[in-house]
Amino acid sequence: MTNDIFTRRESEARSYCRSFPTRFTKAKGSELWDDKGRRYVDFLAGCSSLNYGHNDPDMQAALVDYIASDGITHALDMHTDAKAAFLNAFEDIILRPRGMDYKVMMTGPTGTNAVEAAIKLARKVTGRDTVISFTNGFHGMTMGALALTGNEGKRAGAGTALNGVARMPFEGAFGDDMDSLTIIEQMLGNPSSGVDAPAAFIIEPVQGEGGLNAASADFLRGLARLAKEHGALLIIDDIQSGCGRTGTYFSFEGMGIEPDMITQAKSFSGMGLPFAALLIKPEHDIWKPAEHNGTFRGNSHAFVTARVALEKFWKDDSFQKTLAEKAMLLTSGLQAVADEIPGARLKGRGLMQGVDVGSGDLAGDICARCFDKGLVIETSGAEDEVVKVLAPLTTPETILREGLGILLEATREATQQTLIAAE
Amino acid sequence: MTNDIFTRRESEARSYCRSFPTRFTKAKGSELWDDKGRRYVDFLAGCSSLNYGHNDPDMQAALVDYIASDGITHALDMHTDAKAAFLNAFEDIILRPRGMDYKVMMTGPTGTNAVEAAIKLARKVTGRDTVISFTNGFHGMTMGALALTGNEGKRAGAGTALNGVARMPFEGAFGDDMDSLTIIEQMLGNPSSGVDAPAAFIIEPVQGEGGLNAASADFLRGLARLAKEHGALLIIDDIQSGCGRTGTYFSFEGMGIEPDMITQAKSFSGMGLPFAALLIKPEHDIWKPAEHNGTFRGNSHAFVTARVALEKFWKDDSFQKTLAEKAMLLTSGLQAVADEIPGARLKGRGLMQGVDVGSGDLAGDICARCFDKGLVIETSGAEDEVVKVLAPLTTPETILREGLGILLEATREATQQTLIAAE
Amino acid sequence: MTNDIFTRRESEARSYCRSFPTRFTKAKGSELWDDKGRRYVDFLAGCSSLNYGHNDPDMQAALVDYIASDGITHALDMHTDAKAAFLNAFEDIILRPRGMDYKVMMTGPTGTNAVEAAIKLARKVTGRDTVISFTNGFHGMTMGALALTGNEGKRAGAGTALNGVARMPFEGAFGDDMDSLTIIEQMLGNPSSGVDAPAAFIIEPVQGEGGLNAASADFLRGLARLAKEHGALLIIDDIQSGCGRTGTYFSFEGMGIEPDMITQAKSFSGMGLPFAALLIKPEHDIWKPAEHNGTFRGNSHAFVTARVALEKFWKDDSFQKTLAEKAMLLTSGLQAVADEIPGARLKGRGLMQGVDVGSGDLAGDICARCFDKGLVIETSGAEDEVVKVLAPLTTPETILREGLGILLEATREATQQTLIAAE
Amino acid sequence: MTNDIFTRRESEARSYCRSFPTRFTKAKGSELWDDKGRRYVDFLAGCSSLNYGHNDPDMQAALVDYIASDGITHALDMHTDAKAAFLNAFEDIILRPRGMDYKVMMTGPTGTNAVEAAIKLARKVTGRDTVISFTNGFHGMTMGALALTGNEGKRAGAGTALNGVARMPFEGAFGDDMDSLTIIEQMLGNPSSGVDAPAAFIIEPVQGEGGLNAASADFLRGLARLAKEHGALLIIDDIQSGCGRTGTYFSFEGMGIEPDMITQAKSFSGMGLPFAALLIKPEHDIWKPAEHNGTFRGNSHAFVTARVALEKFWKDDSFQKTLAEKAMLLTSGLQAVADEIPGARLKGRGLMQGVDVGSGDLAGDICARCFDKGLVIETSGAEDEVVKVLAPLTTPETILREGLGILLEATREATQQTLIAAE
Repeated sequence: MTNDIFTRRESEARSYCRSFPTRFTKAKGSELWDDKGRRYVDFLAGCSSLNYGHNDPDMQAALVDYIASDGITHALDMHTDAKAAFLNAFEDIILRPRGMDYKVMMTGPTGTNAVEAAIKLARKVTGRDTVISFTNGFHGMTMGALALTGNEGKRAGAGTALNGVARMPFEGAFGDDMDSLTIIEQMLGNPSSGVDAPAAFIIEPVQGEGGLNAASADFLRGLARLAKEHGALLIIDDIQSGCGRTGTYFSFEGMGIEPDMITQAKSFSGMGLPFAALLIKPEHDIWKPAEHNGTFRGNSHAFVTARVALEKFWKDDSFQKTLAEKAMLLTSGLQAVADEIPGARLKGRGLMQGVDVGSGDLAGDICARCFDKGLVIETSGAEDEVVKVLAPLTTPETILREGLGILLEATREATQQTLIAAE
Repeated sequence: MTNDIFTRRESEARSYCRSFPTRFTKAKGSELWDDKGRRYVDFLAGCSSLNYGHNDPDMQAALVDYIASDGITHALDMHTDAKAAFLNAFEDIILRPRGMDYKVMMTGPTGTNAVEAAIKLARKVTGRDTVISFTNGFHGMTMGALALTGNEGKRAGAGTALNGVARMPFEGAFGDDMDSLTIIEQMLGNPSSGVDAPAAFIIEPVQGEGGLNAASADFLRGLARLAKEHGALLIIDDIQSGCGRTGTYFSFEGMGIEPDMITQAKSFSGMGLPFAALLIKPEHDIWKPAEHNGTFRGNSHAFVTARVALEKFWKDDSFQKTLAEKAMLLTSGLQAVADEIPGARLKGRGLMQGVDVGSGDLAGDICARCFDKGLVIETSGAEDEVVKVLAPLTTPETILREGLGILLEATREATQQTLIAAE
Repeated sequence: MTNDIFTRRESEARSYCRSFPTRFTKAKGSELWDDKGRRYVDFLAGCSSLNYGHNDPDMQAALVDYIASDGITHALDMHTDAKAAFLNAFEDIILRPRGMDYKVMMTGPTGTNAVEAAIKLARKVTGRDTVISFTNGFHGMTMGALALTGNEGKRAGAGTALNGVARMPFEGAFGDDMDSLTIIEQMLGNPSSGVDAPAAFIIEPVQGEGGLNAASADFLRGLARLAKEHGALLIIDDIQSGCGRTGTYFSFEGMGIEPDMITQAKSFSGMGLPFAALLIKPEHDIWKPAEHNGTFRGNSHAFVTARVALEKFWKDDSFQKTLAEKAMLLTSGLQAVADEIPGARLKGRGLMQGVDVGSGDLAGDICARCFDKGLVIETSGAEDEVVKVLAPLTTPETILREGLGILLEATREATQQTLIAAE
Repeated sequence: MTNDIFTRRESEARSYCRSFPTRFTKAKGSELWDDKGRRYVDFLAGCSSLNYGHNDPDMQAALVDYIASDGITHALDMHTDAKAAFLNAFEDIILRPRGMDYKVMMTGPTGTNAVEAAIKLARKVTGRDTVISFTNGFHGMTMGALALTGNEGKRAGAGTALNGVARMPFEGAFGDDMDSLTIIEQMLGNPSSGVDAPAAFIIEPVQGEGGLNAASADFLRGLARLAKEHGALLIIDDIQSGCGRTGTYFSFEGMGIEPDMITQAKSFSGMGLPFAALLIKPEHDIWKPAEHNGTFRGNSHAFVTARVALEKFWKDDSFQKTLAEKAMLLTSGLQAVADEIPGARLKGRGLMQGVDVGSGDLAGDICARCFDKGLVIETSGAEDEVVKVLAPLTTPETILREGLGILLEATREATQQTLIAAE
């Protein structure tokens, strides 16, 4: 069996398989194996879709049991035991302890679908058209979400104009001397600025694709205040940054904001199954029945595994405490990497950190060398200049150190190569 | 355990659960069971997402085996054994025997995502903006797909203008005296019509949500000819009508057309798992890597079950032959229903048939009575005036007769009630 | 003095000067003279901007007097004597006798500006986005009006997508067998048609650029009824067809409709000066002060000449009676032309008539031959296939006959030439 | 004769007449007279449409002569003597001496029409959609131009979304600490900013409606450089700031930029007649014949007066020299006004200056008091906070001083009143 079938039959749109040119066959925890029996440490984790690692045994067991007992696989949005159990767990484990009151909208099981639902609802609620999104933001590939996304390569795929969005600078986008919040405040405060009163702000607290730019609590509170002042809704896109990735279940916990809507996807199912939701403050839940629908909204298998994930990892604060420790380990490991590269700097927060190595070429070279050494890791950022670590949150310390060791070694080789080339 | 959790925590957008107010716990083949142990015959089948029935034992077994052996659940778009096996099966069983040459694009695992990818690509390929879609067409809920969708209730959910689409009449939309193809031809042929040269036509050969309107081969061939004449692509949206639903794997087989793109979703995974793809003629596959991407493109579990579905049902023509027989049975059963209602008429094709009962109220009443009698069945059409049968294609003759019997009885009661009310 | 200056300095967008390659120096009534002293009969009349002929002596006198006495030339939208006199005349001579109650909005002094104001207001009034315009409709070149315009060459000039418009067939657009009104009714009546509830219909009762297609009273009444049923406004674009062109001041008089808005331009100033207005039913006049403004709204010179035009031509019905006679003369003259060409047919109404000669090449050839013989005349229609007569309404019978004579002669030559070429 | 006719028949959109509630009957130079014989000094000058004053005797004479000799009033875009003479004068007097090579496109005779033509052409030339306009920019009221305009009140008039525009800060928009050029450079330089590669920048060198914000040469050169780097065209909207208003014929003379397009309107005709043009670098003049057209493009009367204006005022530098002197006089007069108001500051450049008095209420009060004292003057700015002087460039020193004296007196009264009210 060769990989010809992929080049012969799969669309040119395929991408990660080009960076990792092998065929994977098995995965467990933070490890992957390919068809040659080679083992890889996984620092990509499905772009943060596998926060609890591959094939968590408890989720596996629960899912196998569900399937074997003829549990309903596809139920449209009908009531099922699996959905009730999930919703109860989400209410008990996530919402109540955090004093949060949200309705859960099961959108189509992809992040972009949750984003589309969010901006549709924000426009309905406010009767306004413009949504404010941010430089380097990434929110999905369907027309509404793509309009919010900053990346020019992705935008070019639209083949048509992308409307209804005003773009504002993310925190620090124009350097330390220019305060993004002031810019936004002035743009919205000036009745002749030409930026129409917005329906919503949509922001990732840590920009996953945009280069691991992390917004401060001050910045998010400032946005929340501006949203309130201007009658706009605040949508937190926590698709990549949520589910524990930054050290708490939601990435904005403790920051003093109460988003009007929150998107969830990627690790929401716990096991990497397609699953997404939009959390909506009850007062904004003005949808008519089926006004936004979709065949796969509410993936029953995901209900099962997502419930297990909540019960296993979030019932008390023990898991969360381990994240803080691992984040420190990660920071120091990445600092060692950054120390190898003049001008490099650390980006991100929690277990969503990386190193801006200053060039996409260098970052790409480092990642390619990592792969050769058995580490799956990817870049991020407008110029792909950030080497990004998205290891499962459950990665044992030894494997985390192993991966960081490979990364450091690859970085040394790549920078040496660059030096040699420069001579 | 009550259903309070749903009203308390699930968004008002929920819909089917309002028509079927119970809690389902188990499903097998064409049957569902609820928490009171009550059995239901399923004539909805996840809106055609369960063409092979609930929990097909071979798919169950393969999936359980895959999970238990730590098969990769989430792999982004990396090469995996599961994907290779699926692609090989799709090539061998579906494409080659039909003389079809298409690239497979794994889009996000929902129909709307496949549709979005299709229109983005059509616009890129042609450099044009306008996509022609049809009256009563349904293509999804994300911004690009929603613009193509006709239903005013769904469109209202956008909260903003939906652009880039010109609307043309589906076959028969204006009655028998007005030929839709002639209208389209004249609109496109007149350089001052105001309808810009289109990037694509997108059409469902049988409109699932729009009322089971079935396009004839002549109509589809006419569209294919017009598309070619005007430099537009022909996109067949086979999400609801494909995977055997109309009697052949693709709904347009034998009709003499070669679509430029074909969307697949709903029953594509075989077992009701989220899974979608866009089939693209190789010459149009001009995507750059990752130009359209998504976290859940290529659902590994679905690769496993989809492969089993292809191998089990489509390796030879035995399954297809059973569809023809069942379609005849269905037609005669629905004719009996139609005979109860003055002016009623049969709609649809293959195992995608229904009865236009002339009013949404009557259709709703019939379906509600069916549910009380243990049959899950829904309406369709612009006014919800069509009682629609989407039973699994694998439904045994006895259960098919059972369901049709319930439908006939419910229809009689409902029409009698209407007569009484009228007196 | 040569014409080099035009090729050297004027934009390639210039057009009529290419059909009439001379330099004009003087004009009076229905006659033009060029720099070689050659005389031309004018059957174009500024595309219906000179309904009262060139340099009407009374208008000339009044305007010269106004200028010489330091009358205000530019007054923004301030109150002036000239404006008051015009408004009083318009009220007394046009509105009151017809039982019409409209507010007059002085828009920028071009037709397209009046159209833009109309659709902006219709959207404001209804809170809806979609405006329905018609095949072969022409409404202007600015972005909002261009979206309404059908001509593909004009639309290509936008360089971007033109949104917010749904296109419907003008009366007879699809031939005699297909009733356009039925199509529109069905499109709007079907809640899943995909045509959103419209803010307005905008229609030219006789399509000037689109080929002199004349709507019947039945058709216009049908539109008025549909507009009312669907909560849309009816906008009559009477820019080319108004000011007496079709035989009455407004082109729709006696047809039993009460438009919500009416656009006026072209001959509105009487003398060919830039001047336009939007007539608005008082209940729709919800503009805030300056919400739509413009530097040249209310051209003072035009107030003077427009008032003279109203007083001279519309105070009683004597002028209108002459139009009926001239229209008959025109019809018979054009019938003679049509008789020369197999398949040719008469188009239009009143003094807005022409001959569809079946091909743009033939029509162009005829017009070029006319010009050589001293007649300025142009084509119209999607394929420029209609030879169009827009002579001043004041053209004396002798000159009308003279022009028609030239046209007949040119037609004979052109058709003979075609016959010879065909042999 | 009362003013009832206006309230009875003119649309609520009327505006200036509300600030100046009288009826004007006569105008000469920098003076207006009303129906009560009252004289007013005109510091509004048709919003800079009357740079050469009302009823310049040479223009009057030439126009009266033209009319009296049956010169062509309306010629569509055919060649005429009047047009040739104008084009020759424009070439000889304006273009050649400045080393400028531009094609002249006669658009519809309003500024908004010239702007619409400019952005259509920029999109055609570049194949791009986004046009960058600036905070506080004002470019017109038709859909395309309105999308470029910043004022929220005007934008609300659209009744629909305004697309295709990205908004950037004008120089100084966010205060002295934030360099607008740096912001623009970073937005365009970041491939993930979400601001698509622009078709054009459009900017007023001095923002007339936006508050007399004057761009520096550095800023304009920076934009020119960015436009070149990013493949965008630079459009200078010189409608209000051109024709000598800032001290030179074009407002950007001597600033080291070569715009790709320049709009002209307002004072372009010399006498206040509707007239506009778009100047286009020859390499961008890719219009097809009639691709952008319009009935009143090329106003023949305006050709006559515009030619006289060029010959009388711009043949040598004597007129221009007087502007510098008057600008100094104006600056010192306005400084005296500003000295009366704590925090007030001077705005603008040349004879396009004003005083930002810090509040729209105060500015409105001052202007109302001026009117009572016989001075017509208006406000500008996002909050109407700038008292704006747009006196004719030909205003004699005595009248300029008279007007400034009234303004100072009115300011003193208004500020005293404010003090009293505050006590």
